[in-house]
Amino acid sequence: MNIGILGTGMVGQAIGGKLSELGHNVTIGTRDVAGTLAKTERTPMGMPPYSAWQKEHPNVLLATFADAAAFGELLFNCTSGMVSLEVLKLAGEKNLGSKILVDVSNPLDVSKGIPPSLSVCNTDSLGELIQRTFPALKVVKALNTTNATVMVNPRSVANGDHSLFICGNDVEAKRAVKDLLASFGWNLDHVLDLGDITNARGTEMILPLWVRLYGLFQSPMFQFKIVR
Amino acid sequence: MNIGILGTGMVGQAIGGKLSELGHNVTIGTRDVAGTLAKTERTPMGMPPYSAWQKEHPNVLLATFADAAAFGELLFNCTSGMVSLEVLKLAGEKNLGSKILVDVSNPLDVSKGIPPSLSVCNTDSLGELIQRTFPALKVVKALNTTNATVMVNPRSVANGDHSLFICGNDVEAKRAVKDLLASFGWNLDHVLDLGDITNARGTEMILPLWVRLYGLFQSPMFQFKIVR
Repeated sequence: MNIGILGTGMVGQAIGGKLSELGHNVTIGTRDVAGTLAKTERTPMGMPPYSAWQKEHPNVLLATFADAAAFGELLFNCTSGMVSLEVLKLAGEKNLGSKILVDVSNPLDVSKGIPPSLSVCNTDSLGELIQRTFPALKVVKALNTTNATVMVNPRSVANGDHSLFICGNDVEAKRAVKDLLASFGWNLDHVLDLGDITNARGTEMILPLWVRLYGLFQSPMFQFKIVR
Repeated sequence: MNIGILGTGMVGQAIGGKLSELGHNVTIGTRDVAGTLAKTERTPMGMPPYSAWQKEHPNVLLATFADAAAFGELLFNCTSGMVSLEVLKLAGEKNLGSKILVDVSNPLDVSKGIPPSLSVCNTDSLGELIQRTFPALKVVKALNTTNATVMVNPRSVANGDHSLFICGNDVEAKRAVKDLLASFGWNLDHVLDLGDITNARGTEMILPLWVRLYGLFQSPMFQFKIVR
């Protein structure tokens, strides 16, 4: 499948790399292609520059947000939640069309200090904001409660014995995303479909606890598991 | 130990009953003692009236919020989060003193529809509000992510193999609460101490997901487990 990824960070790289490895055609979108490739210093998070990752993934293309969105039959939003709406506008409503958008982002706002708060929550969510702004898009919230490494290698924590939450308004879109998740290695018995996109409030709002557990463990290699 | 419980609902009954069974002297506080005992109809949640429970627990005393707070060397806040601050004011700053208050409540607000939103979250929490309002009190947030049955019988879900979150500013107070949790049957290896009371933001904010999972499973008998 042709898949467009919005965002060149840790999450975009993890998902883009995995999809390419699985045989999909992947184009990653960025604001400024030449600028992204020209960076040679490590990111503020200590990651190697995108250009280093790109050299190891020659089959993955880099393009503008608009070109990546036009390229993909299915899209992933892997941008920081604080800029997701702006990026989707740059991608362009015409290019987004009525495609499936897997929304992996979280509205984490570090501007008020660490640990971050959420820029939207409680009576709304980023998933809902995106769905309302682009009503034709089939937004499926998924993978946002999970570290990038675990997203594409669920067995890297507790041998894969943990839970993933998914929600969205379109049943067929959720089915397609579950197929992709299964190809990433997720056991679909562990994927809990909460219902429509308003349930993104629930999954985005566990991020404050996620961030605190990251602090406690000094590692992002943990997962929520729902036991009954 | 003499323990005061604020709130006669499902949570107050579960914790009060367990503490009494463990040999503690328990007084439960309510707004209007005669009124609470006079009720003969089931609660809006379908529970038997308090008086029926009281008959089965003759060792547990019922008193005003102020008298229950004065009685307890250690207190539990088992009221609905929307009225917790009001109840604590009725209990009286003098009676609360510098005691340990185990805050089990959540600021669930059903006035804007179901599933409920939170009346405070993100950059504040009910745990912090209570701590700020009564600075001498040693507030320990615990058990608020757990159904009442599971609180006092952790093995009732997944044979006890799940996580509990605890936070508060006073290390000695948290130690005393952990001792009580152990007496309830909690494996302390599963009790994650997140740090100071600001971490109540994290644990209260998973309630919106908890409520949605309750809807999905049509049962409150599930738990969050953190796996690594």
